[in-house]
Amino acid sequence: MPSLKQLLPSLPVLDWGRSYNRDTLSSDLIAALIVTVMLIPQSLAYALLAGLPPEVGLYASVAPLIFYAIFGTSRVLAVGPVAVVSLMTAAAIGQLAAAGSPQYWAFAITLAFISGLMLLLMGVLRLGFLANFLSHPVISGFISASGLLIAASQLKTLMGVKAEGHNFIELVKALLEQAPHTHWLTLSMGLSATAFLFWVRKGLKPLLMRWGLGPKAADVLAKAGPVAAIALTTGLTWALGWQAQGVKIVGTVPQGLPPLTLPQWDLALWKELAVPALLISVVGFVESVSVGQTLAAKRRQRIEPDQELVALGASNMSAALTGGFPVTGGFARSVVNFDAGAQTPAAGVFTAVGITLASLLLTPALYYLPQATLSATIVVAVLSLVDLSILQRTWRYAKTDFVAVLTTLLVTLGLGVELGLVTGVTVSIALFLYKTSHPHIAEVGLVPGTEYFRNVKRHQVNTSPRVLSLRVDESLYFANARALEDVVNDAVASHPDLLHVVLQCSAINDIDASALESLEAIESRLRASGIALHLSEVKGPVMDRLQHTHFLHHLSGGVYLTQFQAIQALAPETVGLT
Amino acid sequence: MPSLKQLLPSLPVLDWGRSYNRDTLSSDLIAALIVTVMLIPQSLAYALLAGLPPEVGLYASVAPLIFYAIFGTSRVLAVGPVAVVSLMTAAAIGQLAAAGSPQYWAFAITLAFISGLMLLLMGVLRLGFLANFLSHPVISGFISASGLLIAASQLKTLMGVKAEGHNFIELVKALLEQAPHTHWLTLSMGLSATAFLFWVRKGLKPLLMRWGLGPKAADVLAKAGPVAAIALTTGLTWALGWQAQGVKIVGTVPQGLPPLTLPQWDLALWKELAVPALLISVVGFVESVSVGQTLAAKRRQRIEPDQELVALGASNMSAALTGGFPVTGGFARSVVNFDAGAQTPAAGVFTAVGITLASLLLTPALYYLPQATLSATIVVAVLSLVDLSILQRTWRYAKTDFVAVLTTLLVTLGLGVELGLVTGVTVSIALFLYKTSHPHIAEVGLVPGTEYFRNVKRHQVNTSPRVLSLRVDESLYFANARALEDVVNDAVASHPDLLHVVLQCSAINDIDASALESLEAIESRLRASGIALHLSEVKGPVMDRLQHTHFLHHLSGGVYLTQFQAIQALAPETVGLT
Repeated sequence: MPSLKQLLPSLPVLDWGRSYNRDTLSSDLIAALIVTVMLIPQSLAYALLAGLPPEVGLYASVAPLIFYAIFGTSRVLAVGPVAVVSLMTAAAIGQLAAAGSPQYWAFAITLAFISGLMLLLMGVLRLGFLANFLSHPVISGFISASGLLIAASQLKTLMGVKAEGHNFIELVKALLEQAPHTHWLTLSMGLSATAFLFWVRKGLKPLLMRWGLGPKAADVLAKAGPVAAIALTTGLTWALGWQAQGVKIVGTVPQGLPPLTLPQWDLALWKELAVPALLISVVGFVESVSVGQTLAAKRRQRIEPDQELVALGASNMSAALTGGFPVTGGFARSVVNFDAGAQTPAAGVFTAVGITLASLLLTPALYYLPQATLSATIVVAVLSLVDLSILQRTWRYAKTDFVAVLTTLLVTLGLGVELGLVTGVTVSIALFLYKTSHPHIAEVGLVPGTEYFRNVKRHQVNTSPRVLSLRVDESLYFANARALEDVVNDAVASHPDLLHVVLQCSAINDIDASALESLEAIESRLRASGIALHLSEVKGPVMDRLQHTHFLHHLSGGVYLTQFQAIQALAPETVGLT
Repeated sequence: MPSLKQLLPSLPVLDWGRSYNRDTLSSDLIAALIVTVMLIPQSLAYALLAGLPPEVGLYASVAPLIFYAIFGTSRVLAVGPVAVVSLMTAAAIGQLAAAGSPQYWAFAITLAFISGLMLLLMGVLRLGFLANFLSHPVISGFISASGLLIAASQLKTLMGVKAEGHNFIELVKALLEQAPHTHWLTLSMGLSATAFLFWVRKGLKPLLMRWGLGPKAADVLAKAGPVAAIALTTGLTWALGWQAQGVKIVGTVPQGLPPLTLPQWDLALWKELAVPALLISVVGFVESVSVGQTLAAKRRQRIEPDQELVALGASNMSAALTGGFPVTGGFARSVVNFDAGAQTPAAGVFTAVGITLASLLLTPALYYLPQATLSATIVVAVLSLVDLSILQRTWRYAKTDFVAVLTTLLVTLGLGVELGLVTGVTVSIALFLYKTSHPHIAEVGLVPGTEYFRNVKRHQVNTSPRVLSLRVDESLYFANARALEDVVNDAVASHPDLLHVVLQCSAINDIDASALESLEAIESRLRASGIALHLSEVKGPVMDRLQHTHFLHHLSGGVYLTQFQAIQALAPETVGLT
């Protein structure tokens, strides 16, 4: 009978679990404590952002951490609710149910389950590479736009008004309309909290270090800033009776363990949620893997993307079974976990225990917590995601990438997260196809006195009226093969004395069947006009494939190892000149 | 005031019209006569295939020829109804109206107009390259499947039964069910006509040459085979009263000039026809351009694809205004035109005059023409389109291309022409993206005694435990950039003594913004582990672009002209070994 180890050969927990000792235990416990303190306000805030009761954020921060610890390959990734995925959850379910209703929560649970199932399937089928089609420009544009959307959506809570909108413009318009109804006490407190949190981020650590704390201790203390803001505003609201003056509070957060829940088995609902779930899966996976890879590399460890899909799938399904909503590996909390010295995923398990204790014991203390404080936490967190410098950088580096960023940004802001993401991916693939379908094809000539060939338009080179040398700077495939036909046709029509065409193939990594047909067409048309086709510098793998084709057997010209050898043979007078 | 010539600088007719003389006139007249004789049965047959009255085929063979002569860049292309486009027309309109009804005809006119408008727009916007996304495997699979579909659809006429089906399987099933009701006289005559036409194709020309005719004359006479078949079967039907015995005849074909017609200005209809019109445009354009290019090359002439779009657009719109249906440049008739010695598009104008005369004078003679004879003409014409050897060739050459052919073939047969084409394009693009997203990345080492570097897995080469050399055989873009990150991460984790990573960039034609971010991530992760990143053999255009980036300014390692120089600098002991 096979042993458990043989059955589960790739379970990462078996790897680190075996060498677990007292040292790693104490490191993990300290890291877990710090992350727990940081996660409590974040979890509540992101649940509200997703349109869910605050306690759901705590539920979503327990089981996923444990399942990630079993299946995940990163030693330090902290899984739970994150800003962008919460926004996407709100966008997906907002159109199907009223925020805050039991049905809304049931849909969020189902969404997490479908998303988890998709991640799991993608992992088992090793489809992790699909996430690569989210290009950096698309992700950057999407994350920045999401940050702006989230910040705008939190302004209403900070202002103490009601304002809804399906896109950035509608949101801003609704906020401007509501401006006269601003609840000034809420706004003052919210802005103070925001300013304090910004200061904590930038100014507290240097101050603490000037007071004599070590950089590590100062860093950890600075991370506790949000907890201080929560304690302070909750205390003030309770002491000064701000609730009676109209400041909205979190209210009763039920005490207790995460509930056992099931997704809704409703085919129509699953169809409705399939596309959002896929988008959430891919965005969550990309965010999680890039955080994981960055942190793993710092310790010369590695993560396995396809196993990460399995781990995130298990995490999301566990979230669905314990009353949670879609989760993924978060950037900020993972960095904190790493900096605090977490050695193994056991730190995640201890964090889960911490959050469980909090949801058992701490929730009554959150009754007077103003909602505006949580909004302030969110605003400060998401504004760090907004990075519009990508527009400037891509404009300078490559216009196609700029177009992809700008399109994603504008469509996400104007038409919402789902359309923004889909449009971004479509546009970036279309631009890539456009680029490769217009290959750079240069007529080259011999640099006098050397064996090098260069573009005749840019350099002083020797050519012969009888020989045309063309260099193609792209792999040949269906979308660009005919471009080569056009170039050769034009060249032949404009070179009346032509006897030889040489294709320098040094940059051709592949030739597909369409391109082979095009080469055959070029060859037979050239032959019909009494011109021979030659190849030079064909790469090994390309040559391997061509070797079995009619094309090479019936080629009117030769195949030369180097372009120089081709010219030596076909136009020796060119080589003689200097 | 600008002259007419300045206003119409690119009108090809001004080019060849100016040098027109008596020699070209007589060549063109002879070619026109031969093509006219060939076109009459073809036009009638393809109109029936498209579900239209036979005279519509004649109408569609007049104005388009004239408009192509004015706008087209090929000297010999013959434009008119063709098999595949007629099938696509039937597929597009068959679901909207009953074949043979006036509404069906009105929809076909509208389809030709929309398709013409799209071609014209694509030409003006210079979007001809979009047609390149129809890869050779997709076209081959599509054309073969269309040939089979058309042949199957004609069997019912040959058998003298009624049978309908939306796909190949349904058609074959319906034919088998109807087999007991076969009209044996029709079938015998139809099969005889088919056999005769096949023999005319293969056996008549050699026979005529044995009888002493020159190859050219034999060829021309052999092309008149279909006319002989028509004359014979029409005569027999009239003389022996086959109509009374149940042989279906063409019946009254109205005499007269093509009517003036207008498309239907109905937005809902246009929306319905938009996708079919686009597919018809692209398929027609691809067929037309490949015929045109092949024939132009034989005389060292050239065609201008974007101008061809304009010409085909004008041809289709003229077809719509004169009672016709979608047309394009046909393979068989253009080859006949070329072989018969056509020198200029004026031959097309003379052909148009010939067809007009035929539709004015000849139609009463077609009354007793059996429909089965026209079906025999179609079957013989389309079976030459079916070429399943592409399956074998692509299987041997490249599996991805094989998958594209097979998918297109099966979906076209099973689900129809439109879905077949769309699926084929989608699959071939997806396969291309898949291929480029999995780049070949090889660890390379120095071939002892040379300056060449080769894959360590295939060759006996020298390497150093301190230096890792990687060669990427693909341009770096968003879909494969992370694959490089993975490879580097894995390599670093498995090489404990590593101090340098060298990327040999000789095959990298482009680096997009995502790949640049990945390179930056790789660089900073390597730096964090105390490893320097170096580049070698970076191409000129790639270097131009990198030069302005932070990446190159902050690179921990160097940029070397050759991989050998890099290894000389970083691991001189490797170079010393032999």
